[in-house]
Amino acid sequence: MERIFTTEVASHIGERVRLQGWLHARRQLGGITFLMLRDGQGMIQAVSEHEAELAPLREAEAELESIIVLEGEMASVPQAPGGVELHEIKLDVLVAVHEITPLTLSKRKLNAQIGSLLDHAPIANRYPARRAIFKLSSTVMNSFRQTLSTRNFVEIQTPKLVGAATESGANVFKLDYFGRPAYLAQSPQLYKQMMVGVFERVFEIGPVFRAEEHDTARHLNQYTSLDLEFGFIENHFTVMALLREVLANIFTDLKERCGPELTMLEAVLPEVPETIPHIHFSEAQELIFRLHKTDVRGEPDLSPQDERWLGAWAKEKFQSDFLYVTGYPMRKRPFYTHPDPEQPAFSNSFDLLFRGTELVTGGQRLHRYQEYLQALELAHIASEPFEAYLQAFRYGMPPHGGLAIGLERLIMQLTGISNVRLAALFPRDIHRLTP
Amino acid sequence: MERIFTTEVASHIGERVRLQGWLHARRQLGGITFLMLRDGQGMIQAVSEHEAELAPLREAEAELESIIVLEGEMASVPQAPGGVELHEIKLDVLVAVHEITPLTLSKRKLNAQIGSLLDHAPIANRYPARRAIFKLSSTVMNSFRQTLSTRNFVEIQTPKLVGAATESGANVFKLDYFGRPAYLAQSPQLYKQMMVGVFERVFEIGPVFRAEEHDTARHLNQYTSLDLEFGFIENHFTVMALLREVLANIFTDLKERCGPELTMLEAVLPEVPETIPHIHFSEAQELIFRLHKTDVRGEPDLSPQDERWLGAWAKEKFQSDFLYVTGYPMRKRPFYTHPDPEQPAFSNSFDLLFRGTELVTGGQRLHRYQEYLQALELAHIASEPFEAYLQAFRYGMPPHGGLAIGLERLIMQLTGISNVRLAALFPRDIHRLTP
Repeated sequence: MERIFTTEVASHIGERVRLQGWLHARRQLGGITFLMLRDGQGMIQAVSEHEAELAPLREAEAELESIIVLEGEMASVPQAPGGVELHEIKLDVLVAVHEITPLTLSKRKLNAQIGSLLDHAPIANRYPARRAIFKLSSTVMNSFRQTLSTRNFVEIQTPKLVGAATESGANVFKLDYFGRPAYLAQSPQLYKQMMVGVFERVFEIGPVFRAEEHDTARHLNQYTSLDLEFGFIENHFTVMALLREVLANIFTDLKERCGPELTMLEAVLPEVPETIPHIHFSEAQELIFRLHKTDVRGEPDLSPQDERWLGAWAKEKFQSDFLYVTGYPMRKRPFYTHPDPEQPAFSNSFDLLFRGTELVTGGQRLHRYQEYLQALELAHIASEPFEAYLQAFRYGMPPHGGLAIGLERLIMQLTGISNVRLAALFPRDIHRLTP
Repeated sequence: MERIFTTEVASHIGERVRLQGWLHARRQLGGITFLMLRDGQGMIQAVSEHEAELAPLREAEAELESIIVLEGEMASVPQAPGGVELHEIKLDVLVAVHEITPLTLSKRKLNAQIGSLLDHAPIANRYPARRAIFKLSSTVMNSFRQTLSTRNFVEIQTPKLVGAATESGANVFKLDYFGRPAYLAQSPQLYKQMMVGVFERVFEIGPVFRAEEHDTARHLNQYTSLDLEFGFIENHFTVMALLREVLANIFTDLKERCGPELTMLEAVLPEVPETIPHIHFSEAQELIFRLHKTDVRGEPDLSPQDERWLGAWAKEKFQSDFLYVTGYPMRKRPFYTHPDPEQPAFSNSFDLLFRGTELVTGGQRLHRYQEYLQALELAHIASEPFEAYLQAFRYGMPPHGGLAIGLERLIMQLTGISNVRLAALFPRDIHRLTP
């Protein structure tokens, strides 16, 4: 008999089927034993009233998480989890587990400290609510790619080991590369720009590395960056319009493909407005002064409190979970940032706030060779290490821009988990290099 | 007028259209000027008999690779490249290039040494035959993902910074991680296995790092690995059957989506047989002895010459570009390799030879906790650094296996390029960290 997945049972009611997976839970009620089988897709309950059916578990001394094969008759039982149940079972133990798991996966709530969850990640990640998180991540990556592939974006893989020049120079991991210093890439920024010169439209999903010593709930030392960059834009508003499409598709795909996971996580999907409201950086500061009597005018950046205030304002005024803040001051943005032609102290850049927290950063980049030479000089950065990068602009680059979405940050904000580490399979922080 | 891509012109014959891109080539024949515009998708020829139409180029002193906007009437001209031509043009220079490019992109053949191509990668990658290579790479990644997504595989992103335990211990890049040693991951092997315990079926596309000091045409220090791992397999033949599907889809997708690129590269796609022929390692050695009078029996591995002989044999005997060699000796395989239950000195592993060169390695892994403890002891590897990894097996893991495809190696063998560096956008080798 061919094995089916737990997600395929609905079309097999009344039939005898074969399932495989982990023995997720087991409980006794009077003379009845309820088993939960968990496979890579979901779970199903099996019921036995005959001790003999469970003999293989006893004989193998098989504890929870043992690998089992379950045959049985698929019955529609409205009060069972998922509305189906396996009856008249035949159980075989494929791999017996003899020890009790360090975390009780069968409980409804996984009551463990974050440290314990992360130390036992190979086991903790099996917990349904942990799996749900990673199913969302996988779906987001897939959606990002599909939106861009249908718009002629080409997927690229760029170097993670770089020789000298990095975007910011700070917070980089350094290593010995055959006797020379090398650094782990903080972002694919410079490479994706060079590739705009080749394909116009490129994207990359991959790891980025930040040697930040921050030990906060919002920082990871390796995270997954969803990057895109494209040419022939008008200005940063072209990038913002594409981002709106990317996000709308992500949330539509999550709704269609991750219904049970969203329910389990009690995550409420946002509506993405047809046009996401936007406010200029300096207007945002004026607004905060007016509404909250706090004078942040002249500050070079928004504080987390400022972002929360702006998020609340957007929700009230536009019923929007999203708000673009545009035109951040040039002095806080990296050297490749394109200034606003009308007000050169401000930039053609944006942050997207999602429920009052920054989620995406992007903008228009410089595209003329001479502008790069000037920008590097102004920032007191030697141009020599950027020689290859500058070739791209020296020999023809269109107006272009792009953005980066932090995958774990997106999942964190969407699901309301309290620590970004819980959005990574095996997170890396200042204290944690294993598992 | 809305901009169209060069790949969209066929549906606009007789219309006035607007295109944007790079001034790829320019030549004069009598009083007629032929321009080639290159955009992110392809190229198109424009023809001008009126000096005035070209005045903007003259005025901007715009050399090749300048960014231009071209309006014109789309005409069907059988003898033109692609069968279409732009007439009655209106040209604007968006960004003027004032210098001659270090490589002549407009030539049919890019006659440059590999060192020069790599030093000037931001420009060299614009050359049509270079772009074609990377279009293939992008398509292969896409195809790999699609095949697996439709089979319930979940995409994962695993740590590239690891604390201690690595698969082999050799050839790893070491770095300082906040005062402690860390290493760059040589493969996602241990993580994808742990994730089989979570999702049964997982895949990852990402960078892997090898600190090999080899300076050959076949080695990169960072490459892109297409990894998959899945549970509830029978043995390595289950993995081989899935690989056959993955490859068949890759070559079908390349055929459908990359026709012009394959033609340009003169790449001949292989047929993937319904069943890829296979031969056991020891039979392969016997065969080589019989056919070539070279006694390699008892050698622990196949040499490149052995692989070429076997490839030629498979081609002649089965008309197949592919051959599986199964059952490599255990002593040359990593500790997690599953032995052949019938002949424990040999493994349930395989290599896939493509046109006589190894392309994919895979196999069945151990899945029982006790077997891991024994295997580590036998290999004289301390189990303590693997503690978290071993949790996965201690608490229930099904029979499983997987494989890894080197993306650049696949592209190299498919297109017949002589150096794997040319299959990477910005390759990393022992001498090269930039661009």
